[in-house]
Amino acid sequence: MPRTLIKDLHVLTLDDNGTLLEGADLGIDEGRILYVGSVPETFAPDETIDGHNKAAMPGLVNAHCHSPMTFERGWAEDLPFDRWLNEKIWVQESVLTSDDVYWGAALAACEMIRSGTVMYNDKYFYMDRVAEVVRQSGMKAALTWTVFGQESDEAFTGRDLDGTAAWIRDMAAEAHPRLRTYLGPHSPYICPPTFIERVVSLAHELGQGIHLHLAESEAQVANSLDRHGQRPVALMDLLGVFDAPGGCVAAHCLAIDEEDIAILAAKGVHVPHCPITYMKLAMPFPTLEARLAAGVDVCLGTDGPASNSDMDLFATLRQTALSDKYQGRNPELIAGDQALRLATRRGALGFEGQGSLQPGEPADLILLDLDQPHLHPLHSLVANLVHSAKGSDVTDVMVDGTWLMRDRGLLTLDEDRILYEAERHAQAMVGRGMKQVREYSA
Amino acid sequence: MPRTLIKDLHVLTLDDNGTLLEGADLGIDEGRILYVGSVPETFAPDETIDGHNKAAMPGLVNAHCHSPMTFERGWAEDLPFDRWLNEKIWVQESVLTSDDVYWGAALAACEMIRSGTVMYNDKYFYMDRVAEVVRQSGMKAALTWTVFGQESDEAFTGRDLDGTAAWIRDMAAEAHPRLRTYLGPHSPYICPPTFIERVVSLAHELGQGIHLHLAESEAQVANSLDRHGQRPVALMDLLGVFDAPGGCVAAHCLAIDEEDIAILAAKGVHVPHCPITYMKLAMPFPTLEARLAAGVDVCLGTDGPASNSDMDLFATLRQTALSDKYQGRNPELIAGDQALRLATRRGALGFEGQGSLQPGEPADLILLDLDQPHLHPLHSLVANLVHSAKGSDVTDVMVDGTWLMRDRGLLTLDEDRILYEAERHAQAMVGRGMKQVREYSA
Repeated sequence: MPRTLIKDLHVLTLDDNGTLLEGADLGIDEGRILYVGSVPETFAPDETIDGHNKAAMPGLVNAHCHSPMTFERGWAEDLPFDRWLNEKIWVQESVLTSDDVYWGAALAACEMIRSGTVMYNDKYFYMDRVAEVVRQSGMKAALTWTVFGQESDEAFTGRDLDGTAAWIRDMAAEAHPRLRTYLGPHSPYICPPTFIERVVSLAHELGQGIHLHLAESEAQVANSLDRHGQRPVALMDLLGVFDAPGGCVAAHCLAIDEEDIAILAAKGVHVPHCPITYMKLAMPFPTLEARLAAGVDVCLGTDGPASNSDMDLFATLRQTALSDKYQGRNPELIAGDQALRLATRRGALGFEGQGSLQPGEPADLILLDLDQPHLHPLHSLVANLVHSAKGSDVTDVMVDGTWLMRDRGLLTLDEDRILYEAERHAQAMVGRGMKQVREYSA
Repeated sequence: MPRTLIKDLHVLTLDDNGTLLEGADLGIDEGRILYVGSVPETFAPDETIDGHNKAAMPGLVNAHCHSPMTFERGWAEDLPFDRWLNEKIWVQESVLTSDDVYWGAALAACEMIRSGTVMYNDKYFYMDRVAEVVRQSGMKAALTWTVFGQESDEAFTGRDLDGTAAWIRDMAAEAHPRLRTYLGPHSPYICPPTFIERVVSLAHELGQGIHLHLAESEAQVANSLDRHGQRPVALMDLLGVFDAPGGCVAAHCLAIDEEDIAILAAKGVHVPHCPITYMKLAMPFPTLEARLAAGVDVCLGTDGPASNSDMDLFATLRQTALSDKYQGRNPELIAGDQALRLATRRGALGFEGQGSLQPGEPADLILLDLDQPHLHPLHSLVANLVHSAKGSDVTDVMVDGTWLMRDRGLLTLDEDRILYEAERHAQAMVGRGMKQVREYSA
């Protein structure tokens, strides 16, 4: 692995002290950060990069997404959640092929790298094909093969639960350093408790965690109480979902009360927050204040491009700050670098490291071009990165010491071909005899 | 003026029919659009441009901003509105010089052109210096020299009301085709009614309109009722503000009732909406539904970069759609191309044209590069432009048939020098003996 020296940078370490360095150097060796600030003369780099007018920060972490769903970008607009699922999303997915998933995920990988994301927590179907994209792209990812717990699973998602377990065993045997897996029941509103119990038992057998959607609306809570006598969070807790050996990622958790929060905190559940989806689909969501105060591991996600429209975490982290300030009627919420910290938390993916630029950490970092009108003046690098920076300001992306992008050029993926094939596959799906395959009910 | 042919484009005309063309050509002559769709062989262009994989749409219109305030970007973070004004904004402005305004406005012009804005409605101080920027940049602008109606006006804003009237007379004598002016009382919560009356009388004398801030909070409404027995909108109406011969731009109008809306609609008041500012400063704002239904001319603005953090109308128009859908609990609000239409309304600036790409319209247009991961697939160009496009996707900007940007290179402004000088001036202000010059009270 090459030894890299980056000179004369602004460095936002996002360490515990909130260290901000100017004119600093970074020394990287064996895929890890070796020096931050000054680099000794004895460090003999293979490559030296001029970082003047650039900022370095930890690479962003997309804690919940459905990356192949780029093929549904612009496909399901201006609709309420139930019609969005019933009439558009599940209809297009009725004709899904594994090739569609591959090219959709490849398109998303291009977009994620270009906007500074180094790792993602992806939940969809045909995840063997997304794993190909991860191997090729150089990114890190935790992959979840979603199943609905229905007899039609194999037809529509590529595998049933046992099939996804076999895939997880294959992935464990491969032990790829940049790949992790989760078991993936869709949600408690679709999967019956007996199915969730099977998932939990498999999780223990395989030493796996569970990644699901949870408590997205008050209607889901009410129906869960009706059907099961428990709120969704309590029900999942009783079924052992939060005790899976690999932990639990419970996306959204929009309709939760104090007891739910206490459970999520006590069980160390990772809760991705995807505010752009919530706003576009008009799904009421609370501020993060209570769950952050309780110590819940809140992290950020783009969700799928069928609702979030992009995979740009800079847009998501800005929206996180704006929506919390606004909904809490308190501009002091999500202040300073907190949005950047939420966007770099790695807990939900289980990879090594704190998501900071410190000696010993994996060299998963991004450089941004500060020499642009919207990033001047530099009264506060942190404020500029939270509220003014765009994904397109990211010039360079490194994972484990290897460059995935240099000067806005992708090094690991054939972007021209991906754009062509992703467009072709997305258009081809449209005419393929789509039908409604299931019906949403909270 | 050059004759320009742009070939093989996607064209979003934003005309009354919502026309969307593929593989279309645009013919431009004498600063106007001559042909849209197909261009006759007899049209002999000076320049022919390949528009393959690009989209053309009308240039964006920033209906309310304080462009020189780029020097306060990142300067006043995470604070409530009153502390933001009292402790940060008005404190920095206590040391303002006309050079600070010039370089701040020049920086904003670079940013606006880069993100697809062709005209802006700017309200600040030392507007003679902003006029220089407009002449140089090739943009169109309506300029408002703000006054507070206080004895200290000349010291802190460069001119008192009579001084701004003299500047308006000079501007009228120059009759620059890309420049308009407004009279600029700050707001009814700062300017006493007797001062507003003087402004209205001057407006009639000079044949001018009035651009002010109006009804930003329920506290302002309550205090207006206490002090004047009228809500702010009704008070301004009684004082004749909405009958100024050049019309009225009343920014924000967040705390208004049905009667206020009826007045604003009946008087043809232009009401810029700046949702990013409202969210960042946690200022409650209603959906646009009632005012749009009543026929109020709602348009979009970035407000100043001290609260909005950027001058990127693509971010503002996306936020407009997201915040209305979310706050209205109705994903069908601000659907289709409506956000784009709001962002191209020219009424508040008084320039000729409908903000559409049709024969006879001024050639004020932008091109966007569609050949990027986040703009694929192309199920809906409109959805992609509203929810996925970024200001940085704009490659080319034309005003009155003249290019201001080609292939992301600015043609009219010396960007390197502007970045250097804007940074230098912003930093120099910090040490210059700032003090609190006034106190906000609703």
